Amino acid sequence: MISAPAEFLAARHTALASLLGRGGLDALLVTHRPNISYLTGFFGSAALLLVTREGLDLFSDARYAEALRLLTLEVPSLTVEAPPPGMGSAEERLVARLGALGLPRVGFEAQAISVRQHTDLVARLRHAAITSELEAADGLVESLRVIKDPWETATLREAGRRLSDVAKCIIPKVLKGFAEREVAAFIERELRQKGFERPAFDTIVAAGPHAALPHYRAGDRALQGGDLVVMDFGGMLRGYAVDMTRTVVLGAPTRRQRECLEGVAASQQAAFAAAHVGAAPEDVDAAARQALADRGMGEAFVHGLGHGLGLEVHERPRLGPRREGMAEPPLAAGMMFTLEPGVYFPGWGGVRIEDDVLAAEAGPEWLTSGADEV
Amino acid sequence: MISAPAEFLAARHTALASLLGRGGLDALLVTHRPNISYLTGFFGSAALLLVTREGLDLFSDARYAEALRLLTLEVPSLTVEAPPPGMGSAEERLVARLGALGLPRVGFEAQAISVRQHTDLVARLRHAAITSELEAADGLVESLRVIKDPWETATLREAGRRLSDVAKCIIPKVLKGFAEREVAAFIERELRQKGFERPAFDTIVAAGPHAALPHYRAGDRALQGGDLVVMDFGGMLRGYAVDMTRTVVLGAPTRRQRECLEGVAASQQAAFAAAHVGAAPEDVDAAARQALADRGMGEAFVHGLGHGLGLEVHERPRLGPRREGMAEPPLAAGMMFTLEPGVYFPGWGGVRIEDDVLAAEAGPEWLTSGADEV
Repeated sequence: MISAPAEFLAARHTALASLLGRGGLDALLVTHRPNISYLTGFFGSAALLLVTREGLDLFSDARYAEALRLLTLEVPSLTVEAPPPGMGSAEERLVARLGALGLPRVGFEAQAISVRQHTDLVARLRHAAITSELEAADGLVESLRVIKDPWETATLREAGRRLSDVAKCIIPKVLKGFAEREVAAFIERELRQKGFERPAFDTIVAAGPHAALPHYRAGDRALQGGDLVVMDFGGMLRGYAVDMTRTVVLGAPTRRQRECLEGVAASQQAAFAAAHVGAAPEDVDAAARQALADRGMGEAFVHGLGHGLGLEVHERPRLGPRREGMAEPPLAAGMMFTLEPGVYFPGWGGVRIEDDVLAAEAGPEWLTSGADEV
Repeated sequence: MISAPAEFLAARHTALASLLGRGGLDALLVTHRPNISYLTGFFGSAALLLVTREGLDLFSDARYAEALRLLTLEVPSLTVEAPPPGMGSAEERLVARLGALGLPRVGFEAQAISVRQHTDLVARLRHAAITSELEAADGLVESLRVIKDPWETATLREAGRRLSDVAKCIIPKVLKGFAEREVAAFIERELRQKGFERPAFDTIVAAGPHAALPHYRAGDRALQGGDLVVMDFGGMLRGYAVDMTRTVVLGAPTRRQRECLEGVAASQQAAFAAAHVGAAPEDVDAAARQALADRGMGEAFVHGLGHGLGLEVHERPRLGPRREGMAEPPLAAGMMFTLEPGVYFPGWGGVRIEDDVLAAEAGPEWLTSGADEV
């Protein structure tokens, strides 16, 4: 894993420190793993991060001691504790640190801590007579992550180029007789060969009637002439996710298949044209939905238009129909997201096309090749 | 995904209903995904499950409507709701159902629900004037899952056989000049070819000094003569995880490398010999640790001995040193777990060997080939 250079990590900490100041918080306990990775460059599975305005304290365990030692050489503002087994859990050491720092108001990520972990932490603080107040403070790090910094933009552009190459290499291999699972294996091998650390999620290869299931994975069905085949695949590069979907027909498409393919492509184009800085995400979704409704396929588009990408495969912004009480802020330069309209007809099949887009002042930019090109 | 046959799902529901009765609970709100899969055969990402003594109600959304329609044909005790967008979130429909059922005491999984989700649910119940009391009730489904049923045992045996074949196929391909990432790609391709749905986790290929990092993934280092190469890989078969590690030396091992390899193998054998029904997991760990201490390598074994396997790659039982206030119950027939001792020397390298074992009255059974055979 090549993490962001130290100056970017430092800038992220400065930005978060400023948010803490505005919220009147003395610290933030970060438990959401992608947020920990974003702030420290640490990608391990077991850690708690305490962010104060002055610095970052990462609590982990001995399994990661060597990885963390290398990391602190790169990131001077980071203090890490990863003692051997028996020297106290990360939670115990966090509580001791909170006691030593004497911080009155400590935010925590209510969406990323279980009721159990929170209850235990409160009990430990009380037991140690530490008066720090824990306050739910969701979305602070996410509000930074939604706007990609130049290192992230460069990483995602590179990842998008490589994923587009994967798409080009695999489409000629979608042939009659192969099982869905075998096509998925081709795709994942190609991802590795293009330098991705790993698939971003379980690769979907859905053929024939399976193409009607938006969240099908890949099974034993052998591809047959006339099948619609939906392939949804993504890769992680330096910890960042990119995501594409292509749908092909084995052989000459029927009229209905062609109408679906053209309708979904037109829907994606309409969304791209609407995805300018300042647009409401729900309006971008509506543009895609209208293009399908104009062709009588509005009912068959059963999911949202797209989702943000970054350290997570699904993150902000959400591009979908308006939801009561869940307004999404307008698109801003540096946001990165998918446009993935689809139509699904149970028992018959389906079509989905997905590309990744970066919002910029000059207009949206395709990060993957765009529906016209593959 | 081939889910457990309906009679096994029915037996799991009956066993859980009996636990609810004993705990005086009228229902359990299941939010931990593997627990939902265990009880319903549903493997999608978005669902809430309400289990009463009479049946199971699964709340999901339109993306899964078709998958769920197929599922309910198989499992008659299951009711599912997956309405189209705009027809209310899963949470809203859950609250409506709770109101209709009028259940006084409803357990919830405090380890698998966020503070945010719990707070929202409590507010919705209060807003709808529903008097159901939510009570933390962790580990009920897990206490069933820890003892594998005959369908699970058969699945895991089959998965173990296939994973052992993967190990045999890939070891001859660990050659000088390949990058760690390329070896990981060989392994994952082999996993697919042996019928696994996907890797159970990011494949680890750690060569040379990287072998000193227990949780390294796979990077760009080209394998060099004399390298220790740790390969830790696993696959999901019908939703169940198996997990193995092999360490090889490129070329003739040095004396120290041989001592490490032999020491770790002896440690695993000592653990296997101790892993009988009725043994405390910490004693199995102690047997493995003693074997390394006898060779002067006790300090270098920085993690626990093993973990349970099943619908999750890490589940109960935990085989590790005793932790204050966290006693593990003794091993019982039907428990399935890894034995994976390792030694790590920063800057030099490391060795880990891992196999999967099923506890049985007649004595432990290797589910993967066992350290002697590869």
